Amino acid sequence: MKLYELCGADGRYFSPYCWRTRMALAHKGFEPTREIIHFCDKDRIAFSGQDKVPILVDGDHVVFDSHAIALYLDETYPDQPSLFGDAIGSGQAQFFTQWVNSTVHGPLLHCVIQDIFEHLDDASKDYFVESRTARMGKPLAEIQAGRDQSVLKFRKALTPVRLTFNEQPYLAGETPAGPDYTLFGAFQWARVVSPFPILEADDPVFAWRERMLGLFDGLAGKALGYPVI
Amino acid sequence: MKLYELCGADGRYFSPYCWRTRMALAHKGFEPTREIIHFCDKDRIAFSGQDKVPILVDGDHVVFDSHAIALYLDETYPDQPSLFGDAIGSGQAQFFTQWVNSTVHGPLLHCVIQDIFEHLDDASKDYFVESRTARMGKPLAEIQAGRDQSVLKFRKALTPVRLTFNEQPYLAGETPAGPDYTLFGAFQWARVVSPFPILEADDPVFAWRERMLGLFDGLAGKALGYPVI
Repeated sequence: MKLYELCGADGRYFSPYCWRTRMALAHKGFEPTREIIHFCDKDRIAFSGQDKVPILVDGDHVVFDSHAIALYLDETYPDQPSLFGDAIGSGQAQFFTQWVNSTVHGPLLHCVIQDIFEHLDDASKDYFVESRTARMGKPLAEIQAGRDQSVLKFRKALTPVRLTFNEQPYLAGETPAGPDYTLFGAFQWARVVSPFPILEADDPVFAWRERMLGLFDGLAGKALGYPVI
Repeated sequence: MKLYELCGADGRYFSPYCWRTRMALAHKGFEPTREIIHFCDKDRIAFSGQDKVPILVDGDHVVFDSHAIALYLDETYPDQPSLFGDAIGSGQAQFFTQWVNSTVHGPLLHCVIQDIFEHLDDASKDYFVESRTARMGKPLAEIQAGRDQSVLKFRKALTPVRLTFNEQPYLAGETPAGPDYTLFGAFQWARVVSPFPILEADDPVFAWRERMLGLFDGLAGKALGYPVI
């Protein structure tokens, strides 16, 4: 197996989607070869027929999109630990992924977008600032300057996660699985590029993040980034 | 089996939580005896040790809270169709229930709160207006007067549901199950008491609601309420 994943400067792997897949692969017990892609390297993934990572190459299979990769892994390797569970679990996982993408990523990106820029490889910086400024409609530094407000929105968006942790330790129940990795990717995205504290220390989500950082012998926690405070 | 459920005037069953359980019981293939409870009848459910419906009495078991009832049904009757799926599915269902409760119900209640009042049995009206005015901090009619704005918040909150329906017809995947009933309860809550259009006709969520209204020989669609427009 080969995993194509996004990297910034100095080995900072910040993509939330790639982290979903790295954690998912570890959960399934796989250790793929890793291929580093920078934003400016899009020609190197043209073989996949699209321009985003993660991309998993498994023998003859080329699978892209972190959710599709997780579904592929569950379907292809049913004897390894499940990511999304049975059909009803996979159905719900689709909603959960859409919820993280549409509700959680936005306010978090507003907190760290300039920090992402600062940690990119030089060759990718122009692409990032142009594409993101166009998409967001404002200079990145100006967006991030409002992060004291954005972080409140982010924490509020996590309300149903927090309520879930009153009932069980992980989003998938008693042990972590696919939905935990889907959300955790967002936290790793922030931690890898930014020292900004996105959670309060007494938040049950903070304790969950600690547990996630420790999984698989500290796979995510040992990755280059800022300490969580 | 006996189900205690909330009713207003004229056989209007408007509780979103009771609808979750009615649909869940139909999904499992059960037809419980139904006991009608009005807001003013709390003494009749004191046997359960708390004051809310739905309550399911199954032989010696007294189970309350719609989510706990669904879990109970899955655990006790594993050979009937599953509501939440396996352990990872049940874990995710906890999040989904918290998401509906914390994100969807609020803006929807703002759209129909005075309409609920209008459809209550007379004996329950004083209790409702006092308890809800205290909880919401405003007169109910004043809250509902702002519903042209509230409904936009409600529709926006449904964004991840809408995105899910780009991928699959039900929240549980290819066929409806527990999470669909959890969200559908909110729509039935509104429909039973209010003619106010809460969805646009071209919204994929509208088409899903139509399918939900038709399930189990029109169990929800035939219940007394307003047509959906």
